[in-house]
Amino acid sequence: MNTPKQYVYAFTKGDGKNKHLLGGKGANLCEMTQIGLNVPPGFTITTEACLDYLAREKVLPAGLMDEVHAQMKMLEQSTGKLFGDAHNPLLVSVRSGSAMSMPGMMDTILNLGMNRETLQGEIEQTGDERFAYDAYRRFIQLFGKVALGIADEQFDKPFEELKRREGVKEDVGLSADNLKEISAVFLDVVHGQTGRPFPEDPYEQLELAIKAVFNSWMGKRAVDYRREFNITPDKANGTAVNICTMVFGNRGNDSATGVAFTRNPATGENIFYGEYLVNAQGEDVVAGIRTPKPIAQMAEEMPNLYRQLEELRNKLESHYAEVQDFEFTIEKATLYCLQTRNGKMNTQAMVRTSVEMEAEGLINREQALLRINPESLEQMLFPRLDPNARIAPIATGLPASPGAACGHVVFDADRAEQQGNTGKKVILLREETKPEDIHGFFASQAILTSRGGKTSHAAVVARGMGKPCVAGAEGIEVDVMARRAHIGDVVIREGDMITIDGTTGNVYLGAVPTVEAEFSDELNTLLSWADAAARLKVMANADTPVDARRALKYGAMGIGLCRTERMFNASDRLPIVLEMIVADNLEQRQAALDKLLPIQRQDFVELFKTMSPDSVTVRLLDPPIHEFLPSEQQLIADIQHLKRLSEVMQGSEILSDTLSLLFSGSRGVALPQVLQVADSSLVEEAIEKKEAILKKVRALFEVNPMLGHRGVRLGITYPEIYAMQIRAVLEAACECQKQGVEVYPEIMVPQVCTSEELKAVRVIVERIKDEVTTETGIVPVFKFGTMIEVVRACMRANKLAEEVEFFSFGTNDLTQATFSFSREDAENKFLPMYNEVGILRDNPFEVLDTHGVGKLMELAIGWGRERKPDLKVGICGEHGGHPASIAFCHQVGLSYVSCSAPRVPIARLAAAHAALLQA
Amino acid sequence: MNTPKQYVYAFTKGDGKNKHLLGGKGANLCEMTQIGLNVPPGFTITTEACLDYLAREKVLPAGLMDEVHAQMKMLEQSTGKLFGDAHNPLLVSVRSGSAMSMPGMMDTILNLGMNRETLQGEIEQTGDERFAYDAYRRFIQLFGKVALGIADEQFDKPFEELKRREGVKEDVGLSADNLKEISAVFLDVVHGQTGRPFPEDPYEQLELAIKAVFNSWMGKRAVDYRREFNITPDKANGTAVNICTMVFGNRGNDSATGVAFTRNPATGENIFYGEYLVNAQGEDVVAGIRTPKPIAQMAEEMPNLYRQLEELRNKLESHYAEVQDFEFTIEKATLYCLQTRNGKMNTQAMVRTSVEMEAEGLINREQALLRINPESLEQMLFPRLDPNARIAPIATGLPASPGAACGHVVFDADRAEQQGNTGKKVILLREETKPEDIHGFFASQAILTSRGGKTSHAAVVARGMGKPCVAGAEGIEVDVMARRAHIGDVVIREGDMITIDGTTGNVYLGAVPTVEAEFSDELNTLLSWADAAARLKVMANADTPVDARRALKYGAMGIGLCRTERMFNASDRLPIVLEMIVADNLEQRQAALDKLLPIQRQDFVELFKTMSPDSVTVRLLDPPIHEFLPSEQQLIADIQHLKRLSEVMQGSEILSDTLSLLFSGSRGVALPQVLQVADSSLVEEAIEKKEAILKKVRALFEVNPMLGHRGVRLGITYPEIYAMQIRAVLEAACECQKQGVEVYPEIMVPQVCTSEELKAVRVIVERIKDEVTTETGIVPVFKFGTMIEVVRACMRANKLAEEVEFFSFGTNDLTQATFSFSREDAENKFLPMYNEVGILRDNPFEVLDTHGVGKLMELAIGWGRERKPDLKVGICGEHGGHPASIAFCHQVGLSYVSCSAPRVPIARLAAAHAALLQA
Repeated sequence: MNTPKQYVYAFTKGDGKNKHLLGGKGANLCEMTQIGLNVPPGFTITTEACLDYLAREKVLPAGLMDEVHAQMKMLEQSTGKLFGDAHNPLLVSVRSGSAMSMPGMMDTILNLGMNRETLQGEIEQTGDERFAYDAYRRFIQLFGKVALGIADEQFDKPFEELKRREGVKEDVGLSADNLKEISAVFLDVVHGQTGRPFPEDPYEQLELAIKAVFNSWMGKRAVDYRREFNITPDKANGTAVNICTMVFGNRGNDSATGVAFTRNPATGENIFYGEYLVNAQGEDVVAGIRTPKPIAQMAEEMPNLYRQLEELRNKLESHYAEVQDFEFTIEKATLYCLQTRNGKMNTQAMVRTSVEMEAEGLINREQALLRINPESLEQMLFPRLDPNARIAPIATGLPASPGAACGHVVFDADRAEQQGNTGKKVILLREETKPEDIHGFFASQAILTSRGGKTSHAAVVARGMGKPCVAGAEGIEVDVMARRAHIGDVVIREGDMITIDGTTGNVYLGAVPTVEAEFSDELNTLLSWADAAARLKVMANADTPVDARRALKYGAMGIGLCRTERMFNASDRLPIVLEMIVADNLEQRQAALDKLLPIQRQDFVELFKTMSPDSVTVRLLDPPIHEFLPSEQQLIADIQHLKRLSEVMQGSEILSDTLSLLFSGSRGVALPQVLQVADSSLVEEAIEKKEAILKKVRALFEVNPMLGHRGVRLGITYPEIYAMQIRAVLEAACECQKQGVEVYPEIMVPQVCTSEELKAVRVIVERIKDEVTTETGIVPVFKFGTMIEVVRACMRANKLAEEVEFFSFGTNDLTQATFSFSREDAENKFLPMYNEVGILRDNPFEVLDTHGVGKLMELAIGWGRERKPDLKVGICGEHGGHPASIAFCHQVGLSYVSCSAPRVPIARLAAAHAALLQA
Repeated sequence: MNTPKQYVYAFTKGDGKNKHLLGGKGANLCEMTQIGLNVPPGFTITTEACLDYLAREKVLPAGLMDEVHAQMKMLEQSTGKLFGDAHNPLLVSVRSGSAMSMPGMMDTILNLGMNRETLQGEIEQTGDERFAYDAYRRFIQLFGKVALGIADEQFDKPFEELKRREGVKEDVGLSADNLKEISAVFLDVVHGQTGRPFPEDPYEQLELAIKAVFNSWMGKRAVDYRREFNITPDKANGTAVNICTMVFGNRGNDSATGVAFTRNPATGENIFYGEYLVNAQGEDVVAGIRTPKPIAQMAEEMPNLYRQLEELRNKLESHYAEVQDFEFTIEKATLYCLQTRNGKMNTQAMVRTSVEMEAEGLINREQALLRINPESLEQMLFPRLDPNARIAPIATGLPASPGAACGHVVFDADRAEQQGNTGKKVILLREETKPEDIHGFFASQAILTSRGGKTSHAAVVARGMGKPCVAGAEGIEVDVMARRAHIGDVVIREGDMITIDGTTGNVYLGAVPTVEAEFSDELNTLLSWADAAARLKVMANADTPVDARRALKYGAMGIGLCRTERMFNASDRLPIVLEMIVADNLEQRQAALDKLLPIQRQDFVELFKTMSPDSVTVRLLDPPIHEFLPSEQQLIADIQHLKRLSEVMQGSEILSDTLSLLFSGSRGVALPQVLQVADSSLVEEAIEKKEAILKKVRALFEVNPMLGHRGVRLGITYPEIYAMQIRAVLEAACECQKQGVEVYPEIMVPQVCTSEELKAVRVIVERIKDEVTTETGIVPVFKFGTMIEVVRACMRANKLAEEVEFFSFGTNDLTQATFSFSREDAENKFLPMYNEVGILRDNPFEVLDTHGVGKLMELAIGWGRERKPDLKVGICGEHGGHPASIAFCHQVGLSYVSCSAPRVPIARLAAAHAALLQA
C-alpha cells in the first residue's frame, strides 16, 4: 500500500534543501522560517502536485485542497485572523516557484482573500478606508489578469481615465472614493470579460489561483524559456505554489519596506547596503515613484528596527555563508523577512568578498574559490570602457576578442606598422584580414573588420594575441583606395580616432575612456589559493617575448605553446621567409634559413630569459607554407596592375596612391625605392618576383589545406627548415646556460601520425645537439615531445610515448579530425544550425567534446602512460582555457593546460575548481 | 657447456624444411635426396656459419673446415672419386643460397677441384681432351671472377681475340688445342691480376669459394636488394653454401641436360612439358646456341631414360603436391635431378591446375584455394591486349584502372555521350576530368588523360566503374578547341581509333586486338569453393543497374554501396540537380526534387530487381553539393565569353566552333537552340543562368571541402533532399514487393558523427515509411544503417548502434581523418616521399592501416556489438577489395566486404584465404 503523497508543507516543516520538491522560493521560505527569521507564516504546495495535476489533464490531485484547507486553518491559528472573515480577515499572497528561477511563469497575486465582506473587515482592522480599497482594487486587477486571463488594458484604460478625470498623475493622488469607484468598475470588467461575477468565495479564489500557477508551467513563454536555456526535467520539473500571509509596509509610519545587500555588491566592501521606504509597499520601491532612503538612515529614523535589521543581516550571512540580497517589510513595527537569495555581484566584488569572508572565518578557502565562476574573471582581465562614459555606438559587430581600446584608424597593415612603430596608437580597420597582415596586428591596439565571424582570421589571431577585436561590423563600408570608411553618413578617415569594445562588439567614434584590467591584491590572493588547490599547472600560449611578459603578469607557470611561425611574420622576417619558400633548390633555401637562424635564436634567448626558470615549449613550423604567401587572386591582380603600369611608365605621371595600392600586401618588394625612382626596370623586377611567387602559390595549392602538407610532413620534406629551428632553440639554450640563466626549452613536433616521424626528427635533434655541444662546450638542457592532434597519434600513443618525454594535445585540430569538420566551413555553414536543432549541444571548437575527442584523449593518455608512466601530458588547444574543458583535463589526469595569456587566471581558478570538486 | 654448433649437413641429413638454416636451395637438395631422387651427392654449409664468419670479421668459425673435410671424404666414398686426384678426380660445384631467392649474391662456381694434375685425371677418365680443357678454362674463368674478383673483360678480351684469330663465331668451334692455349692465358691473367699464381690446392680453392659466398651476403647489390624489397632478418639472414658433386650432360650421346615442368605452365594442362639437349651442358640450353628438343621426343630418342624422367615427374608432383619446374642432367645414361621448385604459371594455369589436381586427389580444396594469390586473379578479370599483337605504344602514362579497350577518340564528355549513345565505341581523351564529365565516362569504353595521377578524378571514377584508364600520359598535348591532340609528331583527331591498356599504361594508335576477360569453368568452380570456405560475404559497389548486372557476373552477393549521387550525373538529371542547387527557397528546391523523384525511383526499381533477392545498400547523398557545379574559373571565363559574344552578336557571324566551346561543360544551358537561333536574348538568358550558378558556387565555397558541408550535414540542412531519396527507395521497394519481387533495400546515412544525426534522419524515414504504407497499402521491407567514416562515429559506436541495424566502414574517408591526410594532397605532395624514406611502409589509401584505422575499427565494432550483438558490420571503402585488408576485416569480425565489381572475385578468394589461414 502506498502512503498517500504529502502535497503541502508548512514553512515550518518543509525541507529547505529540497528545491526540486518545493521550488527555490518555497525551500528558501522554509529554510528562513526554520532558522528563526521572522517570515510571515505560510506553506508551499509541491512541484509533484503540479505534475500530477498536469498529468491528470488539469484536475487537482485528490486530497490536495484538503491539505490546503488544513494549512489555512493553521495560518488562521498563528495569525489570529480568519480567511474570509468580515471582521479580521486573513489575506495571503500566492506565488509560483520552480527549482530554477524562470521568467514567464505566473506573477504574484497579492491580497487574496478579499471580497466585499473582508474589505469591510480590513477597513475595520486598519481604520484606513483608502488603504483597504487600494488593496481591494489591486487584488481584483491582479487576480483578473493572472488567474482569469483578462488583458491588462481592460483595467488600465478605465484607471487612466479616472486619473485623467481627477487630474492626478500618480496613483497616490487618488482618494479613497476614487478607489472605491474603480473597484466597482474593475468588478464589472471581470464580469464583462468572463461572463460571471468576480468570485467572492476566498477558497474558490485560492483554488483558481493554484490552478493558474500550475497551468503557467506549460505556458508558451515558460516552455520556450526552458527550451532556450536547456532546462531539462532533471534541473526543474513542475512549479511549486507558495501561499503566504500578507504583511503590509504601508500601514503607517511604523511600517516600511526595503531591499538590502549584506555587503556592497558593487565593490564587495563589508558594509550594510540597501534602501527602504517608510509607509510603502514593495512595488513602490521597485516602481521608483518615491525615492528610497539609504539603509544607514534607518539607524536614526527607526533605531530599534535598524538593530533588528542588522541582526537579520548577520544571521543571514552566517547561515548562508554568502552575501545575501534580501527583502523585508515592517508592518506596524514588526520586521518580516520576505525573501533572501545569494547576492549578485560583479567579479571584483566577488573576489573581494571571497578574500574578506575567508579572513572573517565565514568561509574557508575552498568555499572562497568555489563561489567564483572562473569564466567571470574575464570581466577583470581586459580593459573595459569606463562604465560612466555614456556614448552611443556608431556600429556594432561581433564581440570577437574581449577588451576595449582606442586608437587612430589605419586601413592597411603596412601603415599600421609604420605608424604603430612610431608609438602612435592605431586601430587596424579592414574588410577582412589575412595572414600577410599579421605585422599590422602587432603594431595595432585593436582590430576592426567589416566582414567575417568569430572565427575569421582577424578574430582568431586577435584572441591569440589578447588584442581586442570587433569582427564583421557589417554597417561599415571600407574604401582602402581612398583611405576612408563609411557608416551610413558617418565618414571615418585615416587618422580619425575610434574606440572599439571587443567584449560587446560596439564601435564608437572618438576616444572613449577605458578602465584598465585590474590585478587587485585580493585577486592575487585568491589565485594563489587556487594554485595551491589545483593539481593542473597552467601555462600560456605565447609566441614572442612581449607575449611572454604578458603571460607572466597573468601568472602563467611556463609557456605551453610557442608557435614559431608567428615569429616569421614580422616585417624583417617575412621577405626572408618568402625567399625560403620560393627557393628552387636546397642551396637557395639554406641561404634564406641561414639568415633566419640568428633572428630566431635571438627570439628564443629573450623568450627563455623572460620565462626562466619556467619551461618554454617550442612548436616547430606547423602551417602549410603557402599560408605565408599572398593569394592567387591578389597576385594575378598585382601583376596585371604592374604590367599596365609598366606600359604607361614612359612619360606618364605615377600617382603615389596607385603605386601604394599596387604594392600593398606585397612586402617582398620594397615600396620606397619604387616610389623614389620612376625606373621601369624596378617594375619589371617586381613583376618577375610576383610571378615567381605566383608560380609557387600554384605549385603549393591544396584541395584541403587543413589535411595537407604541413607540420612534421614539411619538416621531413625539408629537414633543413626544422634543423634551423632546432639549432636556434639549442643555441639559445646554450647561450642562456652560459650566462647562468636556468632554462627549460622543450621541442615539440606538430601533426605527428606515426612514431617514425618522431624518429626522423629525433635524428636531426640529436645531430644538432652534438654539434652545438661541440661548438659551445655546453650540453643544452631540453625535452623532446609531440603534439597529439592527429587521430592516428592517439591510436599509436604507446609507440609515440617511446620516442618522447611529453605529449601536448592540440585539441583544435584533433576536434576537426574527430568530427571531420573543417572549423571555418562548419562554423559558417552548418554548425549554428546543428546547435539550434539540438544535433550538437555545444560548438565543439569552444567546448571540448568529451564523448568523442575526450574519449580519444583518454585512450591516448592510457596507452601512452602504459608505456611510459612518467609521461608529461598537456593540452594547448583553445579548450585549454575553458573551465568545463579544464575540469575534464583534470579528470583524465593531464599534467598541465596551456591557453592564451588573458585566460590564464581563469584557467588557474578552473583548475582549482576541478581539483576541489573531484575531492 | 655448449655443444659445438654443427655447421655442415650432408644432403642426406639436412632438414628439408629448415630453409632458414640451410637456405632455400640447400633445404631443397636435402629434401630431394631424402625422398629418393637421384641428386648428385653433396652437402650444405649453414647460414649460421655465414653469420658467425661475418661477426668474426671474416674469419671462418673454428671447426668449419674440419667438417667440410669430413663431408668431402664422404663424397669421395660415395662417388668413388678423389678430390684433387690426378687419375679419378672429384669435381664440385659451389653455390650460394639464402632463405629467400635473392639476386646479387654469388654466382655458381663449377668444376671446382680442377688444377693441372686433376685436369690430366679428367682427360684420363673421359678420354676427351677438349671436354677436359673446356671444363678447366671455364673453372679458371668463373673462379677468377667470382672468388678472386677479377673483372670479366680480363678473360673475355683474350678469348674473343682467340676466336677472331681462329675465325670461329661460337665457343664450340674451338679445338682442344685452342682451349688448352686459352687455359694457359687465363692462368696468366689470374697471376697478373692477383699478383699470385692460380691456387692449385683444391682445398684452398674450396675455402676461397666458401668465403667468397659468405662475403657476397654483404655485397652492395645484395644489401640494396634486401633494403629495396624489405627482406628483414626474420625472413632471411645469411647465406648457406651448397657444395655438390659435378655431373656432366656433355659426356657424349648417352648424356643430356634439360628443364621441365610437370604440367604445361601456359595452360595448366596435365601434360609433361619441357626441353632437352643431348650432349650438352645446362648453360647451352640457357644460352640458346642450340635449339633444344621438346621433351616428348626423348621418348623415342632415349626411351629408357624418358621412363625414368616420367617417374621423376610423378614423384616430384606427388611429393610436393604442386606443379614443379625442375632441372635434370643425364651423365652417361644416369639421370640426375639437379633442382626443383614450384612452377611459375599464369593465373589461368594456376586456376586450372588447382581444380584438376583437386580432382586427381593430389591436393584438397583448401590447398587448391590457398595456392592461388587472390591478387593474381586480376589477370583473368579484365580484357587484355592480345599477347600476339606486336605493336609499339605511342605514349605511356600511369596504369590507373586495369583493362584494355579501343575506341574512337573524343575530346569532351558531351561528344562522348552523343556518340556513345549511338553505339559507337569511344575513348574520352581529356587533359584531366571533373565531376561534370561523368556522363562522358558512362558512354566511353575507356578514359585517357594527359594530366593527373593514380588518384586523379579520372582514375578514381574509372576504377569505380571498372573501365580502363590511363592517366597522366604526359607526352600528349590536348587541344580541345581544335579537337585534336599531339604526341610529338603524331596527330590524333576526333574519331581516330586508339587503344589503351590500363594495366600497363600504354597507349597505341589504331585498334589493337584485345582478349576478353575469362570466366572459365575452372574459375567458377574455384570461386564456389572459396564462397563455401569464406565467412565474409562479398558485395559490390555499384551505382546503376548496368553496374549491378556486371557485379552479378562477378559473383557479388549483393550491393554494399550504391552512391545515389552518381545517378544525378546523367544528362537527363544534371540540369534538374542544378535547379535544385541554385534554388533560392524551399519551394523551388522541392519543385526540382519532385522532378528527380520518379527518375531515382525508377533507378531503384531496376536495381532492386536486378539484385533480387540480394540486398542493396543505398547511401543517401554524400558529396558537398558544389561538386555538381562547374568551377568558378570556368564560369567566369564562360560569362566573359558570352558577354563578348552578346556584344558582337548583331551583324557578325557566329562560328559554331566558338559557340560549342563556350557552351561545353555548361549542360544547364541547351546548346542546340542557341545554335539554331542566333537570338541575343538566348545569350542574355545564358549569362543570367551562369551568373546565378556563379553566385551559388561562391556561396558554397569551402576551405576544406573534405571536412565540409556534406553527407548527413546536408541531409539535415535540406531534409527535403533526403526525404526525396528515402521516398524513392521505399516506393521502389513497394513497387517490387507488389510485383512479387523479393527485395532488401538498406538505407545508409553518410558522414555521421553523432547519434542525434541518425535520430533526425530516422524521423524522416519513419514518416515516409508511414506515408508510403498508406499510399500503397504495402509495408516496405528495409533496413536502416550508417556509414562509419568519421572518427567520432567510432568513438560513439555504442550510441550509434542503438539507432541502426548495420554499420558500414567507409575506410577511404576514415583513413583521411585518422591520418589528417587529404588523399589528393597527400598523394601529390608527400606520401610518395613518406613511403620512400620509410616513414610509412604502404600507402594507407591502398593498404588498410591496421594499427591506426584498423584499431579504430576494432574499437567501434566492439562498442557497437556490445550494445547490439547482432549488428551487421561491413566495409565499403576501396580497401574492401584488397586481400591483406580483407584478411584484417575477417579477423575483426566483419560481416561483409564491398568492393568494385571486377575485384569481387579477388575478394571472394581473399575471404576464403582469410578464413582458411585463421583456422
